Amino acid sequence: MSITANDPKRKTWLDIPKDTDFPIQNIPFGVFLTRDDIITIGTRIGDFAIDLGALHQLGYFEGIPLTDDIFLQDTLNDFISDGKKTWRLVRNRIAELFDEKNEALKNNQEHRNVVLFTLDEIEMQMPVQVGDYTDFYSSKEHATNVGSMFRDKENALLPNWLHIPVGYHGRSSSIVTSHIPIHRPKGQTMPEGAKEPVFGPSKQIDFEMEMAFITTDANLLGEPIPVDEAEDYIFGMVMFNDWSARDIQKWEYAPLGPFLAKNFASSISPWIVTMDALEPFRTEGPEPEKELMSYLKYTGKKSFDINLEVFLKPEDGEENLLSQTNYKYLYWNMSQQLAHHTINGCPVNSGDMMASGTISGPTPDTYGSMLELSWRGEKPVQLKDGSLRSFIEDHDTVIMRGFCENESIRIGFGEINTKILPVFEPKKK
Amino acid sequence: MSITANDPKRKTWLDIPKDTDFPIQNIPFGVFLTRDDIITIGTRIGDFAIDLGALHQLGYFEGIPLTDDIFLQDTLNDFISDGKKTWRLVRNRIAELFDEKNEALKNNQEHRNVVLFTLDEIEMQMPVQVGDYTDFYSSKEHATNVGSMFRDKENALLPNWLHIPVGYHGRSSSIVTSHIPIHRPKGQTMPEGAKEPVFGPSKQIDFEMEMAFITTDANLLGEPIPVDEAEDYIFGMVMFNDWSARDIQKWEYAPLGPFLAKNFASSISPWIVTMDALEPFRTEGPEPEKELMSYLKYTGKKSFDINLEVFLKPEDGEENLLSQTNYKYLYWNMSQQLAHHTINGCPVNSGDMMASGTISGPTPDTYGSMLELSWRGEKPVQLKDGSLRSFIEDHDTVIMRGFCENESIRIGFGEINTKILPVFEPKKK
Repeated sequence: MSITANDPKRKTWLDIPKDTDFPIQNIPFGVFLTRDDIITIGTRIGDFAIDLGALHQLGYFEGIPLTDDIFLQDTLNDFISDGKKTWRLVRNRIAELFDEKNEALKNNQEHRNVVLFTLDEIEMQMPVQVGDYTDFYSSKEHATNVGSMFRDKENALLPNWLHIPVGYHGRSSSIVTSHIPIHRPKGQTMPEGAKEPVFGPSKQIDFEMEMAFITTDANLLGEPIPVDEAEDYIFGMVMFNDWSARDIQKWEYAPLGPFLAKNFASSISPWIVTMDALEPFRTEGPEPEKELMSYLKYTGKKSFDINLEVFLKPEDGEENLLSQTNYKYLYWNMSQQLAHHTINGCPVNSGDMMASGTISGPTPDTYGSMLELSWRGEKPVQLKDGSLRSFIEDHDTVIMRGFCENESIRIGFGEINTKILPVFEPKKK
Repeated sequence: MSITANDPKRKTWLDIPKDTDFPIQNIPFGVFLTRDDIITIGTRIGDFAIDLGALHQLGYFEGIPLTDDIFLQDTLNDFISDGKKTWRLVRNRIAELFDEKNEALKNNQEHRNVVLFTLDEIEMQMPVQVGDYTDFYSSKEHATNVGSMFRDKENALLPNWLHIPVGYHGRSSSIVTSHIPIHRPKGQTMPEGAKEPVFGPSKQIDFEMEMAFITTDANLLGEPIPVDEAEDYIFGMVMFNDWSARDIQKWEYAPLGPFLAKNFASSISPWIVTMDALEPFRTEGPEPEKELMSYLKYTGKKSFDINLEVFLKPEDGEENLLSQTNYKYLYWNMSQQLAHHTINGCPVNSGDMMASGTISGPTPDTYGSMLELSWRGEKPVQLKDGSLRSFIEDHDTVIMRGFCENESIRIGFGEINTKILPVFEPKKK
């Protein structure tokens, strides 16, 4: 079945900005609360949110095998369970409905009134209930930077790194969508030179610029997913900010990995951009530097050319560009990550989320975390207002943006916009 | 509200074995498939499974605020969300209904026919949908044993261990109930003396004898749970076998912790024993060896005296007792674990599962893993049939049993019974 929704020549009858992240060739999926306080599944074209639950009730998905309530849910999990063929049919149909040559919906004002929302009329929700969340560590540049800071430069990469798409389990319950502010966490740290740990607010709050993919039901307990079938089970991608408290991390992480340093919050962009929409932006990843185990050897192009930007906005201040990086720098791709994750038979379900790890490129302006940008605070970053940042301060807002672009189209992810608040103070009883 | 269900003098009109794990003072909660292929929530007394969905429809929970379908579900999550007061009302009511002096149900054969099942008529299911699963590392003896094997004896415990209830995130999707066989996982390992890693079936499959607790909705993003309130959010406990592939673990775990070495499977006992039922078995834990941070300082007895046993049964062979340990050996208790987990504001929800980490006691016969019992294979364990075990072999069955006992009652957890199968072979297409 062809992905007709990707036709770069198609135009929509909706009035949309020229350089939008969400042209009619994108058609991402998300969940939102409407002006009538109803939760529904929707898509976005330009600055319009489109209620797919209403479209379906009005019969616009006729002929596609969908249950009546598939879009009248508060998560995309069931729709994602329907599988790639259904996702594609729905996305192609949406493209047709909003094509400038199609007058069915365009000329029906009554239907348009219940289907279309402006962005200020809706509130984005988490798009999926995340069953399990895994974070990989797939940027060689990031792993090398962190390794040379915390170990030595000669042995920055651990011996397993070029053989294994290293990953670990994270916390699903604290993944939130854009525009949810996050309190600075408290915790134990061991200050430089101290003999006993101390307790208090983290002094080293950091972001990590990552991308995450969302899976469908992929396998049963015991069954590995072959690397060249892995993409069949990937629904789409979001941007992912893996908030980190570096001082807590340093004291707690040995020997079982990061825990409270990470699980206070992760923030995602609310619209899931489908793998179909990203198809035109396939690219090669880096050449493997070691012979790969056969379960990790793949054919074809499995990486994607996605531009990623991180900005910091102080309270009442301007946005400062901190980093410009690209998903294609990653050493390990999603197919390898999913094949590795399941080689032992670990089951993967609809709504699981797998993040890439911090995406850093080869030069300092492409580093994906403050830890690297300020080199552990040794080289604080100067903002336009003259102030310095080694890490993120209270009331700072971190904004991440991501988009693919070629000569004919731009497919974007929108943004993750997250403000850091001071530590939580419980109400006096 | 008093826990009348705990009255040790109460007898039931059901005919039950004298030394059962499930006297009328236990009243655990579980989910099962009935002879009519219906999934329901139930409890167990002796060798009877009791359909709570049917009991509720017949009006036996009148006066308790419950939705009509609260027990007609395939997980306990919603019931657990109802909170401690409701759990206690339901458990007290069940105790009254099956009290030998109560003739209402006893004398109603029609009702008994739809409510009571023998164990061979049902199939136990996962009792909850696990949102997030965390594994702690709370046995000082286990951490010391592992540390002296993999590092040196003098520095066996890492510096953070006596300050932090160390924990890490695990995989929810591969938690299964008793009697689900597990395939030996494949993966990468770095054999002793090798220069390059190799791929194949793990040669070091191990169990870990743990206990896990299940929480209710406890807090919002950003809000810590005080240590002395933590028990309000704990519904009950199950036994937990944290299957481990030691050779995969050794090669993969630095620096982010165990991943594929653990996430191929974890097995639990299917009946959740409530904290109310365990109340008579409260006990002191070990004295802290370091001054505790104030968020980890608690009042009262927060540990429990739970006997735990591990058996190994070779194919067609006899059961061999491998270990006899006790939950009370744990250095960190559940209240400390939950206070620590949330001190940074990490949200905890209904159905989350938190395991203790391997429970080892002071002497070799109380070690909770083969790694420790066979001391990394240096001292293989001899079975009754003369064969030796350093780790678990294909077709071996590992059985875990747990119970509390005093002069008047025994409250047990039943068993986890899990067979290890050879590696999964995909069907030829």
